[in-house]
Amino acid sequence: MSAFLSGQSYGKSNVRLTKVTRHADRHDLVELAIDVQLEGDFAASYLSGDNRKVVATDSMRNTVYALAADHPLVDPESFALALAEHFLARYPQVSAATIVAREMPWRRMETPAGPHPHSFVGGGDGVRTCRVRKTRGEVSIAAGLAGLPLLKTTDSAFRDFVRDEFTTLADADDRIFATLLDAEWTYARTTGIDWNATYARIVAAMLEVFAEHKSLAVQQTIYAMGERVLAVCQDVARIELAMPNQHRIPFNLAPLGRQNRNEIFVTTSEPYGLITATVSREGASWAS
Amino acid sequence: MSAFLSGQSYGKSNVRLTKVTRHADRHDLVELAIDVQLEGDFAASYLSGDNRKVVATDSMRNTVYALAADHPLVDPESFALALAEHFLARYPQVSAATIVAREMPWRRMETPAGPHPHSFVGGGDGVRTCRVRKTRGEVSIAAGLAGLPLLKTTDSAFRDFVRDEFTTLADADDRIFATLLDAEWTYARTTGIDWNATYARIVAAMLEVFAEHKSLAVQQTIYAMGERVLAVCQDVARIELAMPNQHRIPFNLAPLGRQNRNEIFVTTSEPYGLITATVSREGASWAS
Amino acid sequence: MSAFLSGQSYGKSNVRLTKVTRHADRHDLVELAIDVQLEGDFAASYLSGDNRKVVATDSMRNTVYALAADHPLVDPESFALALAEHFLARYPQVSAATIVAREMPWRRMETPAGPHPHSFVGGGDGVRTCRVRKTRGEVSIAAGLAGLPLLKTTDSAFRDFVRDEFTTLADADDRIFATLLDAEWTYARTTGIDWNATYARIVAAMLEVFAEHKSLAVQQTIYAMGERVLAVCQDVARIELAMPNQHRIPFNLAPLGRQNRNEIFVTTSEPYGLITATVSREGASWAS
Amino acid sequence: MSAFLSGQSYGKSNVRLTKVTRHADRHDLVELAIDVQLEGDFAASYLSGDNRKVVATDSMRNTVYALAADHPLVDPESFALALAEHFLARYPQVSAATIVAREMPWRRMETPAGPHPHSFVGGGDGVRTCRVRKTRGEVSIAAGLAGLPLLKTTDSAFRDFVRDEFTTLADADDRIFATLLDAEWTYARTTGIDWNATYARIVAAMLEVFAEHKSLAVQQTIYAMGERVLAVCQDVARIELAMPNQHRIPFNLAPLGRQNRNEIFVTTSEPYGLITATVSREGASWAS
Repeated sequence: MSAFLSGQSYGKSNVRLTKVTRHADRHDLVELAIDVQLEGDFAASYLSGDNRKVVATDSMRNTVYALAADHPLVDPESFALALAEHFLARYPQVSAATIVAREMPWRRMETPAGPHPHSFVGGGDGVRTCRVRKTRGEVSIAAGLAGLPLLKTTDSAFRDFVRDEFTTLADADDRIFATLLDAEWTYARTTGIDWNATYARIVAAMLEVFAEHKSLAVQQTIYAMGERVLAVCQDVARIELAMPNQHRIPFNLAPLGRQNRNEIFVTTSEPYGLITATVSREGASWAS
Repeated sequence: MSAFLSGQSYGKSNVRLTKVTRHADRHDLVELAIDVQLEGDFAASYLSGDNRKVVATDSMRNTVYALAADHPLVDPESFALALAEHFLARYPQVSAATIVAREMPWRRMETPAGPHPHSFVGGGDGVRTCRVRKTRGEVSIAAGLAGLPLLKTTDSAFRDFVRDEFTTLADADDRIFATLLDAEWTYARTTGIDWNATYARIVAAMLEVFAEHKSLAVQQTIYAMGERVLAVCQDVARIELAMPNQHRIPFNLAPLGRQNRNEIFVTTSEPYGLITATVSREGASWAS
Repeated sequence: MSAFLSGQSYGKSNVRLTKVTRHADRHDLVELAIDVQLEGDFAASYLSGDNRKVVATDSMRNTVYALAADHPLVDPESFALALAEHFLARYPQVSAATIVAREMPWRRMETPAGPHPHSFVGGGDGVRTCRVRKTRGEVSIAAGLAGLPLLKTTDSAFRDFVRDEFTTLADADDRIFATLLDAEWTYARTTGIDWNATYARIVAAMLEVFAEHKSLAVQQTIYAMGERVLAVCQDVARIELAMPNQHRIPFNLAPLGRQNRNEIFVTTSEPYGLITATVSREGASWAS
Repeated sequence: MSAFLSGQSYGKSNVRLTKVTRHADRHDLVELAIDVQLEGDFAASYLSGDNRKVVATDSMRNTVYALAADHPLVDPESFALALAEHFLARYPQVSAATIVAREMPWRRMETPAGPHPHSFVGGGDGVRTCRVRKTRGEVSIAAGLAGLPLLKTTDSAFRDFVRDEFTTLADADDRIFATLLDAEWTYARTTGIDWNATYARIVAAMLEVFAEHKSLAVQQTIYAMGERVLAVCQDVARIELAMPNQHRIPFNLAPLGRQNRNEIFVTTSEPYGLITATVSREGASWAS
């Protein structure tokens, strides 16, 4: 025999859940998409089709809805943790459970009479995410933000880079900086954190740096954003950021008899620069 | 000869443009995606490859950027109109020009110190659209909103519909109403309108009705929204609305030993109901 | 009262259906996505929420699956027609039914032992579509193809077009022609047609013209394709074609010390030229 | 200082390239989308905006096109390797280069006269991928296939799984098995391999197992596919497979007065089961 099963996991992805909590004065709404992945003693199913230890992915789906009924669901982190704990507690054959949650960006509708008690508007502000992984010995909780469009019209330069025979880009002293922010930070502890307040503080910190930074490179800005997150939130052990550079290319108006005044740009989606960084607290230890 | 060319048009689609206007105290930002379609005396190109009257679509693209440099671009409607007028004025072979603009939903970043002078956040609130069609004799201007997610957690029923052997749906007295609003309204005149203020007023009117309506059917709500738009804006000749019914299906918790309390729903994207309506001002005349 | 309901329709969209027909020697597979839209005497629902004449869209969904069980489903056209006929026959309040079907491009898996009896590979060759609209007096059947990628590396030129101050494009004698073909043809009759054989013949005719045409303009090729379809299939009354021009832009290698040999191109998705044509049989009458 | 830069990489993504090779009797076509990511001595850019060691991502883009002109480009693997080697050889500050290539599925058009010399049809058969990572000491080459739709209408069961209070799924003896295959295999050596022939052999092996396997679980089939790949290709060190279970749910016709005959199914995209496996050659050593 010259092959063996060296890795395996399985689960249910994109379990989409809407929960309404009906208070006397208002309804709260949360919409999540949940992925469940289990690792454990499932080799018999792979090797011989013996499913006696296999939790059906349909049962995982049922579990998500059932536990959503039991849980207050005021933040995705505590719900994802509850799901991970459930799968480990219930099924001895499970060695690790990974739960990913994506929260749809519904916000309460603003009306002339104030926030509406039961109407919501979607879209905007990216997708809040979290990722919980629990094994028999450890648990990690990460939270994040996916796909938030950000753009600044000045305070961004890029110059004095390598110039050789493959270089045609000119130095830029004042360019548009547009991106679609992805960030995921890992918490140093898994209890005693106000997940919603912390999320809001971290996102605000990243946006403030993005806006205020005098950027000499996307690299410099991404690091500054990560550094600030660690400064404002002691509970964050590390943060990973990825920022595509969605180029706005100055359109050359000269052939059309007009002056170039750094006002008119071609919006592009591709190709895009992709800049990533991980910023960690000194002394932290982790495998990455 | 048993075939003839009974319809034709051509143009450039998805010309993506970012314009920055640099004021002393702040920068303004607009990002548009523009489609240009021309009709006219182009049959020679179709029938024999004689391109002498053909305006290259690459030249249309150039024109969009050039006119964007000339134009203040404070609203999409006046820019689309300027483009349509240009193509008719410049090229006698053009009999009609249709310009569609989609505006990316950038909004100025809010910071603790107030609105930021040059940083913007994207996403949210759907895409503002406009559509201008100009011929040698007429011009029409339509504006709209595409893909705005809306959801209300109560004040929506659907009951007493046709019940026959194809019916399995139960009457619902209190269901979630979730949609992705598409609306396009046609203005009764083409000058003297504050396009931005009118857009804001119309969108606010639709949202207010969505939130406040005691809905007996999506049909009833869509008509009420259209009716209100005509009531609040005398410049609107008619409005077309399309509202998918993005069902939130109550998850049956009973088999899992839990009580159904109208709180836990399966979010679905498909299949979806699709409800459309056109609401017009009495006595208006149009071809539709 | 200053508003009235001047248009309305409603239905269920993206009803996704897989049907397996189990023959002794092989299984046949068809996967369709169906849209149903009804027009008729539904104003009471819009105006007052009186749903007594409303067929629930959930019942439409049920109907699609039920009729799929009754129907051989060997082609989408006859099934869409059966659905349209059903809604008119069953519900007197319906004045028109429009059924759109999209067929997923599954094809039987080829194996060294021949076509496999029950395994299929997806993807490729665009999506086959059909559209049936039936009123109390008329019926029309259209079929089509959506999103078929086509590319030829030569026999495409574009020159001698309008050259003015908005023109920067050079004449091209030998360029790449890449598109994503959309076509929809309307049949002159609604019975006595072998829908599958006719579909195959029409698609083959379009591809053959695309491949062999010495193109002086996308316009010329699109017309030639339509003309050929009418020539090879007397049952087609007219055909509408839309061909985006997905530009492959020669990458300028000269600044990088290499020769330009018309071999290296930047693939682009946007902006794109969009060329449309309708080709009709002389003497045919239609509303368009 | 309580933060440090513990990970970083940057590059250009989705560089889209079309290359035409003009032989006397035919043209060959390849269309690739390339991602470049570099790691190395770039901390100064992150920490202080000092870009003197930064290769602009625009220059990476130029490099892709320039090297595509120099390279025969008969397979993606050798081209990706050439790119990786170039970045390491040229820039001493680079410690690792990762190149990912995705090949668009163009295939030569078949005509009644045989394969066409210069016309191509797209779509179908998933996307061929490769991933090359080269450091100063090592190089790895992986190849793969992304998003290939596969479906079998029988020979798939799933039964005797865990049954508890979260279980509502019934045992299935004969269900539809539909998936979207993702696979990536890592080669045991980096020279002396016919990349195209090997790719074809591996894909054929996976499809043959998918078609012929009497599946008791998706897990069992995925393992059998991986095992077969290792059996037919000694150059593969390991293979990672991911197979979503895109459920086709039997539509219950009984309430509609029809018999359930395992013929009519609801096609679903979400939620989906997600089954993964890594199959490795015994004795191989790797970090994963």
